[in-house]
Amino acid sequence: MDIFMQAAIEEARKGLAEGGVPIGSVLVHGGRIIGRGRNQRQQRASAILHGEMDALENAGRQPASVYREATLYTTLSPCPMCSGAVLLYGIPRLVIGENRTFMGAEAHLREQGVALEVLDSEPCRELMARFIARHPDVWNEDIGV
Amino acid sequence: MDIFMQAAIEEARKGLAEGGVPIGSVLVHGGRIIGRGRNQRQQRASAILHGEMDALENAGRQPASVYREATLYTTLSPCPMCSGAVLLYGIPRLVIGENRTFMGAEAHLREQGVALEVLDSEPCRELMARFIARHPDVWNEDIGV
Repeated sequence: MDIFMQAAIEEARKGLAEGGVPIGSVLVHGGRIIGRGRNQRQQRASAILHGEMDALENAGRQPASVYREATLYTTLSPCPMCSGAVLLYGIPRLVIGENRTFMGAEAHLREQGVALEVLDSEPCRELMARFIARHPDVWNEDIGV
Repeated sequence: MDIFMQAAIEEARKGLAEGGVPIGSVLVHGGRIIGRGRNQRQQRASAILHGEMDALENAGRQPASVYREATLYTTLSPCPMCSGAVLLYGIPRLVIGENRTFMGAEAHLREQGVALEVLDSEPCRELMARFIARHPDVWNEDIGV
Protein backbone atom coordinates (compact mmCIF):
# COMPACT_ATOMS: atom_id res chain seq x y z
CA MET A 1 0.00 0.00 0.00
CA ASP A 2 0.92 3.64 -0.53
CA ILE A 3 3.44 4.68 2.16
CA PHE A 4 1.47 7.84 2.90
CA MET A 5 -1.79 5.95 3.51
CA GLN A 6 0.26 3.62 5.72
CA ALA A 7 1.35 6.64 7.73
CA ALA A 8 -2.26 7.80 8.05
CA ILE A 9 -3.25 4.32 9.25
CA GLU A 10 -0.41 4.43 11.81
CA GLU A 11 -1.90 7.65 13.15
CA ALA A 12 -5.35 6.02 13.32
CA ARG A 13 -3.85 3.06 15.22
CA LYS A 14 -2.16 5.38 17.70
CA GLY A 15 -5.55 7.02 18.19
CA LEU A 16 -7.24 3.69 18.88
CA ALA A 17 -4.51 2.79 21.38
CA GLU A 18 -5.17 6.08 23.18
CA GLY A 19 -8.90 5.33 23.36
CA GLY A 20 -9.65 7.75 20.55
CA VAL A 21 -11.62 7.69 17.32
CA PRO A 22 -9.24 5.84 14.94
CA ILE A 23 -9.05 8.23 12.03
CA GLY A 24 -5.63 9.39 10.87
CA SER A 25 -4.38 11.77 8.24
CA VAL A 26 -1.17 13.09 6.71
CA LEU A 27 -0.53 16.14 4.55
CA VAL A 28 2.07 15.49 1.84
CA HIS A 29 4.03 18.05 -0.14
CA GLY A 30 7.00 17.52 -2.44
CA GLY A 31 7.09 13.81 -1.69
CA ARG A 32 7.27 14.15 2.08
CA ILE A 33 4.89 14.36 5.02
CA ILE A 34 4.63 17.91 6.35
CA GLY A 35 1.84 17.26 8.88
CA ARG A 36 0.50 14.20 10.69
CA GLY A 37 -2.63 14.00 12.78
CA ARG A 38 -5.37 11.91 14.27
CA ASN A 39 -8.83 12.53 15.67
CA GLN A 40 -8.48 14.14 19.12
CA ARG A 41 -12.07 14.08 20.40
CA GLN A 42 -11.34 11.75 23.27
CA GLN A 43 -7.69 12.59 23.89
CA ARG A 44 -8.03 16.38 23.94
CA ALA A 45 -11.81 16.79 24.36
CA SER A 46 -11.78 18.47 20.97
CA ALA A 47 -14.84 19.27 18.87
CA ILE A 48 -12.81 20.33 15.83
CA LEU A 49 -9.68 18.16 15.72
CA HIS A 50 -10.77 15.50 13.30
CA GLY A 51 -7.78 13.64 11.87
CA GLU A 52 -7.55 15.88 8.82
CA MET A 53 -7.80 19.08 10.89
CA ASP A 54 -5.11 17.82 13.28
CA ALA A 55 -2.79 17.07 10.34
CA LEU A 56 -3.39 20.55 8.88
CA GLU A 57 -2.77 22.16 12.27
CA ASN A 58 0.38 20.15 12.87
CA ALA A 59 1.69 21.18 9.44
CA GLY A 60 1.71 24.73 10.79
CA ARG A 61 1.16 27.92 8.84
CA GLN A 62 1.94 27.31 5.19
CA PRO A 63 1.80 29.59 2.17
CA ALA A 64 -1.01 29.05 -0.32
CA SER A 65 1.52 27.70 -2.84
CA VAL A 66 2.26 24.70 -0.61
CA TYR A 67 -1.38 23.72 -0.09
CA ARG A 68 -1.97 24.01 -3.82
CA GLU A 69 0.63 21.34 -4.53
CA ALA A 70 -0.27 19.11 -1.57
CA THR A 71 -2.17 15.87 -1.19
CA LEU A 72 -4.18 15.06 1.93
CA TYR A 73 -4.40 11.40 2.94
CA THR A 74 -7.15 10.38 5.32
CA THR A 75 -8.29 6.97 6.51
CA LEU A 76 -12.00 7.91 6.32
CA SER A 77 -14.09 9.96 3.92
CA PRO A 78 -13.85 13.62 5.03
CA CYS A 79 -16.80 15.25 6.79
CA PRO A 80 -18.11 18.67 5.66
CA MET A 81 -15.74 20.52 8.05
CA CYS A 82 -12.59 18.76 6.84
CA SER A 83 -13.78 18.98 3.23
CA GLY A 84 -14.28 22.71 3.76
CA ALA A 85 -10.71 23.04 5.02
CA VAL A 86 -9.52 21.33 1.81
CA LEU A 87 -11.53 23.86 -0.22
CA LEU A 88 -10.34 26.85 1.86
CA TYR A 89 -6.72 26.03 1.15
CA GLY A 90 -7.19 24.78 -2.39
CA ILE A 91 -5.70 21.35 -1.73
CA PRO A 92 -6.15 19.72 -5.14
CA ARG A 93 -6.04 16.02 -4.26
CA LEU A 94 -7.33 13.69 -1.56
CA VAL A 95 -6.60 10.01 -1.01
CA ILE A 96 -9.31 8.40 1.13
CA GLY A 97 -8.91 5.08 2.94
CA GLU A 98 -12.57 4.14 2.83
CA ASN A 99 -16.06 5.61 2.62
CA ARG A 100 -18.27 2.67 3.62
CA THR A 101 -18.31 3.51 7.34
CA PHE A 102 -19.10 7.15 6.61
CA MET A 103 -19.65 9.01 3.35
CA GLY A 104 -18.38 12.55 3.71
CA ALA A 105 -18.75 15.53 1.41
CA GLU A 106 -17.15 13.74 -1.55
CA ALA A 107 -19.75 14.92 -4.08
CA HIS A 108 -19.23 18.54 -3.04
CA LEU A 109 -15.44 18.19 -3.26
CA ARG A 110 -15.67 16.67 -6.76
CA GLU A 111 -18.02 19.46 -7.88
CA GLN A 112 -15.39 21.94 -6.70
CA GLY A 113 -12.70 20.24 -8.75
CA VAL A 114 -10.85 18.26 -6.07
CA ALA A 115 -9.44 14.94 -7.30
CA LEU A 116 -10.44 12.06 -5.01
CA GLU A 117 -9.05 8.56 -4.85
CA VAL A 118 -10.89 6.06 -2.65
CA LEU A 119 -8.87 2.96 -1.71
CA ASP A 120 -11.61 0.97 0.06
CA SER A 121 -8.99 -0.20 2.55
CA GLU A 122 -9.89 -3.11 4.80
CA PRO A 123 -7.53 -2.02 7.63
CA CYS A 124 -9.22 1.40 7.66
CA ARG A 125 -12.68 -0.17 7.80
CA GLU A 126 -11.68 -2.60 10.54
CA LEU A 127 -10.32 0.14 12.79
CA MET A 128 -13.62 2.00 12.59
CA ALA A 129 -15.73 -1.15 13.06
CA ARG A 130 -13.82 -1.99 16.25
CA PHE A 131 -14.22 1.51 17.67
CA ILE A 132 -17.87 1.97 16.75
CA ALA A 133 -18.81 -1.41 18.30
CA ARG A 134 -17.33 -0.22 21.62
CA HIS A 135 -18.21 3.49 21.53
CA PRO A 136 -21.19 4.19 19.26
CA ASP A 137 -21.99 7.31 21.32
CA VAL A 138 -18.56 8.89 20.75
CA TRP A 139 -18.71 8.10 17.06
CA ASN A 140 -22.15 9.66 16.73
CA GLU A 141 -20.96 12.75 18.57
CA ASP A 142 -18.01 13.00 16.19
CA ILE A 143 -20.29 13.23 13.17
CA GLY A 144 -22.94 15.43 14.81
CA VAL A 145 -25.57 12.70 15.12
CA MET B 1 -26.86 46.01 18.28
CA ASP B 2 -27.52 42.40 19.22
CA ILE B 3 -25.63 41.59 22.45
CA PHE B 4 -24.23 38.40 20.93
CA MET B 5 -22.80 40.20 17.89
CA GLN B 6 -21.35 42.71 20.35
CA ALA B 7 -19.64 39.83 22.13
CA ALA B 8 -18.26 38.55 18.80
CA ILE B 9 -16.94 42.05 18.04
CA GLU B 10 -15.30 42.18 21.48
CA GLU B 11 -13.48 38.96 20.59
CA ALA B 12 -12.39 40.47 17.27
CA ARG B 13 -11.10 43.58 19.07
CA LYS B 14 -9.13 41.44 21.51
CA GLY B 15 -7.64 39.70 18.48
CA LEU B 16 -6.61 43.00 16.90
CA ALA B 17 -5.04 44.13 20.17
CA GLU B 18 -3.00 40.90 20.21
CA GLY B 19 -1.79 41.52 16.66
CA GLY B 20 -4.18 38.93 15.26
CA VAL B 21 -6.73 38.77 12.46
CA PRO B 22 -9.74 40.59 13.98
CA ILE B 23 -12.50 38.05 13.46
CA GLY B 24 -14.53 36.97 16.46
CA SER B 25 -17.32 34.49 17.04
CA VAL B 26 -19.64 33.23 19.75
CA LEU B 27 -21.79 30.11 19.91
CA VAL B 28 -25.14 30.71 21.59
CA HIS B 29 -27.51 28.14 23.04
CA GLY B 30 -30.56 28.66 25.22
CA GLY B 31 -30.01 32.41 25.32
CA ARG B 32 -26.44 32.27 26.57
CA ILE B 33 -22.94 32.11 25.13
CA ILE B 34 -21.46 28.61 25.44
CA GLY B 35 -18.27 29.29 23.45
CA ARG B 36 -16.26 32.38 22.52
CA GLY B 37 -13.39 32.57 20.11
CA ARG B 38 -11.25 34.63 17.78
CA ASN B 39 -8.92 33.96 14.91
CA GLN B 40 -5.65 32.54 16.29
CA ARG B 41 -3.40 32.52 13.20
CA GLN B 42 -0.94 35.03 14.60
CA GLN B 43 -1.36 34.34 18.30
CA ARG B 44 -1.07 30.55 18.18
CA ALA B 45 0.41 30.03 14.71
CA SER B 46 -2.78 28.18 13.86
CA ALA B 47 -3.89 27.16 10.39
CA ILE B 48 -7.35 26.03 11.53
CA LEU B 49 -8.41 28.31 14.39
CA HIS B 50 -10.53 30.80 12.54
CA GLY B 51 -12.82 32.70 14.90
CA GLU B 52 -15.71 30.31 14.38
CA MET B 53 -13.54 27.22 14.88
CA ASP B 54 -12.06 28.69 18.06
CA ALA B 55 -15.57 29.38 19.42
CA LEU B 56 -16.67 25.82 18.61
CA GLU B 57 -13.53 24.41 20.23
CA ASN B 58 -13.93 26.56 23.33
CA ALA B 59 -17.55 25.41 23.66
CA GLY B 60 -16.13 21.92 24.25
CA ARG B 61 -17.72 18.62 23.32
CA GLN B 62 -21.46 19.08 22.99
CA PRO B 63 -24.24 16.64 22.15
CA ALA B 64 -25.85 16.96 18.71
CA SER B 65 -29.04 18.27 20.37
CA VAL B 66 -27.21 21.42 21.55
CA TYR B 67 -25.72 22.27 18.15
CA ARG B 68 -29.11 21.79 16.54
CA GLU B 69 -30.62 24.51 18.70
CA ALA B 70 -27.61 26.83 18.56
CA THR B 71 -26.83 30.02 16.69
CA LEU B 72 -23.30 30.91 15.61
CA TYR B 73 -22.41 34.60 15.51
CA THR B 74 -19.38 35.63 13.49
CA THR B 75 -18.04 39.06 12.58
CA LEU B 76 -17.14 37.99 9.01
CA SER B 77 -18.77 35.73 6.43
CA PRO B 78 -17.64 32.14 7.15
CA CYS B 79 -15.06 30.49 4.90
CA PRO B 80 -15.64 26.98 3.50
CA MET B 81 -13.96 25.35 6.54
CA CYS B 82 -16.09 27.15 9.13
CA SER B 83 -19.19 26.70 6.98
CA GLY B 84 -18.41 23.00 6.83
CA ALA B 85 -18.20 22.86 10.63
CA VAL B 86 -21.67 24.44 10.78
CA LEU B 87 -22.96 21.74 8.41
CA LEU B 88 -21.19 18.92 10.28
CA TYR B 89 -22.93 19.83 13.50
CA GLY B 90 -26.24 20.89 11.98
CA ILE B 91 -26.16 24.40 13.43
CA PRO B 92 -29.35 25.84 11.95
CA ARG B 93 -28.67 29.58 12.12
CA LEU B 94 -25.80 31.99 11.54
CA VAL B 95 -25.62 35.71 12.20
CA ILE B 96 -22.85 37.33 10.14
CA GLY B 97 -21.36 40.76 10.87
CA GLU B 98 -20.47 41.55 7.29
CA ASN B 99 -19.62 39.95 3.96
CA ARG B 100 -18.14 42.82 1.98
CA THR B 101 -14.54 42.17 3.04
CA PHE B 102 -14.86 38.48 2.25
CA MET B 103 -17.76 36.43 0.90
CA GLY B 104 -17.65 32.97 2.40
CA ALA B 105 -19.64 29.86 1.53
CA GLU B 106 -23.00 31.57 2.14
CA ALA B 107 -24.64 30.17 -1.01
CA HIS B 108 -23.65 26.62 -0.05
CA LEU B 109 -24.96 27.11 3.51
CA ARG B 110 -28.29 28.43 2.21
CA GLU B 111 -28.61 25.51 -0.20
CA GLN B 112 -28.13 23.19 2.77
CA GLY B 113 -30.94 24.89 4.69
CA VAL B 114 -28.96 27.06 7.11
CA ALA B 115 -30.65 30.38 7.95
CA LEU B 116 -28.27 33.33 7.50
CA GLU B 117 -28.66 36.88 8.70
CA VAL B 118 -26.10 39.43 7.44
CA LEU B 119 -25.90 42.64 9.47
CA ASP B 120 -23.49 44.63 7.25
CA SER B 121 -21.90 46.00 10.41
CA GLU B 122 -19.60 48.98 10.04
CA PRO B 123 -17.53 48.12 13.17
CA CYS B 124 -16.89 44.65 11.72
CA ARG B 125 -15.82 46.10 8.36
CA GLU B 126 -13.57 48.70 9.97
CA LEU B 127 -11.71 46.13 12.04
CA MET B 128 -10.89 44.14 8.93
CA ALA B 129 -9.96 47.22 6.89
CA ARG B 130 -7.46 48.29 9.57
CA PHE B 131 -5.88 44.85 9.76
CA ILE B 132 -5.70 44.22 6.01
CA ALA B 133 -4.08 47.63 5.40
CA ARG B 134 -1.28 46.65 7.80
CA HIS B 135 -0.97 42.93 7.12
CA PRO B 136 -2.28 42.00 3.67
CA ASP B 137 0.04 38.96 3.63
CA VAL B 138 -1.41 37.48 6.83
CA TRP B 139 -4.95 38.07 5.60
CA ASN B 140 -4.23 36.37 2.28
CA GLU B 141 -2.68 33.42 4.10
CA ASP B 142 -5.79 33.16 6.27
CA ILE B 143 -8.04 32.70 3.25
CA GLY B 144 -5.64 30.50 1.30
CA VAL B 145 -4.69 33.12 -1.29
